[in-house]
Amino acid sequence: MQTLTVDLGDRAYPIHIGCGLIDRADLIVPHLAQPRVAVVTNTTVAPLYLDRLTATLQAAGVAVIPIVLPDGEAYKNWETLNLIFDALLRHRAERKTTLIALGGGVVGDMTGFAAACYQRGVPFIQVPTTLLAQVDSSVGGKTGINHPLGKNMIGAFHQPKAVLADTDTLATLPARELSAGLAEVIKYGLIRDADFLGWLEANMAHLLALNPDAVAHAVYRSCQIKAEVVAADEREGGVRAILNLGHTFGHAIEAGMGYGNWLHGEAVAAGMVLAADVSRRLGWLTDADVTRVRALVRAANLPDRAPALGFARYLEYMGHDKKVEGGRMRFVLLKKLGAAVVTADVPEDVLRAALAQND
Amino acid sequence: MQTLTVDLGDRAYPIHIGCGLIDRADLIVPHLAQPRVAVVTNTTVAPLYLDRLTATLQAAGVAVIPIVLPDGEAYKNWETLNLIFDALLRHRAERKTTLIALGGGVVGDMTGFAAACYQRGVPFIQVPTTLLAQVDSSVGGKTGINHPLGKNMIGAFHQPKAVLADTDTLATLPARELSAGLAEVIKYGLIRDADFLGWLEANMAHLLALNPDAVAHAVYRSCQIKAEVVAADEREGGVRAILNLGHTFGHAIEAGMGYGNWLHGEAVAAGMVLAADVSRRLGWLTDADVTRVRALVRAANLPDRAPALGFARYLEYMGHDKKVEGGRMRFVLLKKLGAAVVTADVPEDVLRAALAQND
Repeated sequence: MQTLTVDLGDRAYPIHIGCGLIDRADLIVPHLAQPRVAVVTNTTVAPLYLDRLTATLQAAGVAVIPIVLPDGEAYKNWETLNLIFDALLRHRAERKTTLIALGGGVVGDMTGFAAACYQRGVPFIQVPTTLLAQVDSSVGGKTGINHPLGKNMIGAFHQPKAVLADTDTLATLPARELSAGLAEVIKYGLIRDADFLGWLEANMAHLLALNPDAVAHAVYRSCQIKAEVVAADEREGGVRAILNLGHTFGHAIEAGMGYGNWLHGEAVAAGMVLAADVSRRLGWLTDADVTRVRALVRAANLPDRAPALGFARYLEYMGHDKKVEGGRMRFVLLKKLGAAVVTADVPEDVLRAALAQND
Repeated sequence: MQTLTVDLGDRAYPIHIGCGLIDRADLIVPHLAQPRVAVVTNTTVAPLYLDRLTATLQAAGVAVIPIVLPDGEAYKNWETLNLIFDALLRHRAERKTTLIALGGGVVGDMTGFAAACYQRGVPFIQVPTTLLAQVDSSVGGKTGINHPLGKNMIGAFHQPKAVLADTDTLATLPARELSAGLAEVIKYGLIRDADFLGWLEANMAHLLALNPDAVAHAVYRSCQIKAEVVAADEREGGVRAILNLGHTFGHAIEAGMGYGNWLHGEAVAAGMVLAADVSRRLGWLTDADVTRVRALVRAANLPDRAPALGFARYLEYMGHDKKVEGGRMRFVLLKKLGAAVVTADVPEDVLRAALAQND
């Protein structure tokens, strides 16, 4: 097991990465304010890991309220969130009752948001069971739900007390979701670490085969980069926005195709290729750079072409992005491979040309 | 105009109290991060003050998105909150768009919660138009909505950038709501300031007649006491709980009678008399003290008797209180007039006797 700390002063918390962590009550119990938790999971993950985590906790004297949600991005809405509140109130969960998110990004985002709002804030712990959640959504304190007009539009910053990334759980992950998680891993290389990008190019086959050492390194380095960026800018006033490489386009793709049809990671992958192409058109990346990005995305079995929504619909969906300021869209682009920037200075014809090539 | 500051470090904010503040763009504009606001109000307050506030802001070059909600505690729920999110997204409100709450406690709590959650947090300003909101809900950063199983169970701590308490607006307040606000004013005397309690006994008639000097003093002193308590304990880890005198009983009354039938202040008034009676049974207050509390509550035209819900239903509703810890109910009681304490040590027979007298 490796542990790294997200350095946020009195909200600092550990991320544990390794095998068999679901059986480690000792990583959870020290963070509990009372020996009672609510474990929030979904209908897919519950049969796989809920009994094991519950047994782990009960053996340590912790009472468990199980809350099982329907599975899927399409359920990341207020109605599903209310199922959590209903269960918490029915079981008289208190301000010191800790919520534990057991599942992927949707479970983590909704559990975290429920924890942020229930009685104006209760503690929570993340036990991410997808690669995407282990390297991205479980780290950094962003929580929330979708709105028909935009993804993650309603939410809160609420930091977990701890994150347990049990890499064994990736064995039960569908191949498509493993690839979706790799999109975010590739992102960390692109925005901040050209060496890691090279390592990914050399090790993509090992990652897809779930080689334990390769997976552990990819998760650790990804969390480390995210933790550094989040510690520098907890509430996304500045540098944190670089974590959204590919996401402005990606959110438009997800919304435009209907939530749940493209996985988040798939949309981000196609969005990163678009961002790389826009960066090339601005003279920052070379043709060879874009080819590398495209090849790595393909090697991870991810789409390297955004769907043909048409320019107007891209603009419409991107206009709802949370990075919009004073009516101007802001984009995360690449000055070079391994170095991201945030800019509002993208001429419309450049954007139009980049999007038109997929029409 | 008088101004006091709620001392919360980098979240400190001013409370302005006086006449004609709705016309004072200079009190709002310095707090705006962009010249664009959404004014959230309700169908009762909109015809009275929305045009005036909008004109004030527009004259100062600020664009206004008006959002008018249905009026009443019964609408303090997710569906109504979603009307705010819908409008914000439709008008492409951004992270720097400020929300302004124009109305009573329900509008303030919902607008504040919407501001806490929209795009994970946008700024907001309170323009309270009821006495209750001016002395209580607009100060302290508590925001939220109700759940069928409990009041304010879902919410956030989110501090406003400024509060403008325009005492002129009380002229349009129904007498019953003025009295409801006076319940909270009485509360501040009971928990923290015996002198202020005496002043209220001497000036209740002036307050009911809306004598401007009397009203200004009552609002100022109430906000001052609340600001002191909140500054000492922003997130209700300790002393802040004393602001809930009468509220544990009061919330049970509101829930038990059906939200919206008893006004919050009415329920709190009856709850404070109950709390005083429990304090007497514990030997802390004298019979004469309880008689004084009862007389002052009556002088404000407030109910001094809790409804006969039966002991079991009181327990049921009080069990959902946010102050419950380790399954134990905690009560705010009075050691003497002007000095509150929080305690879990209330024998059940004392509680039963206090509640039974109204059966």
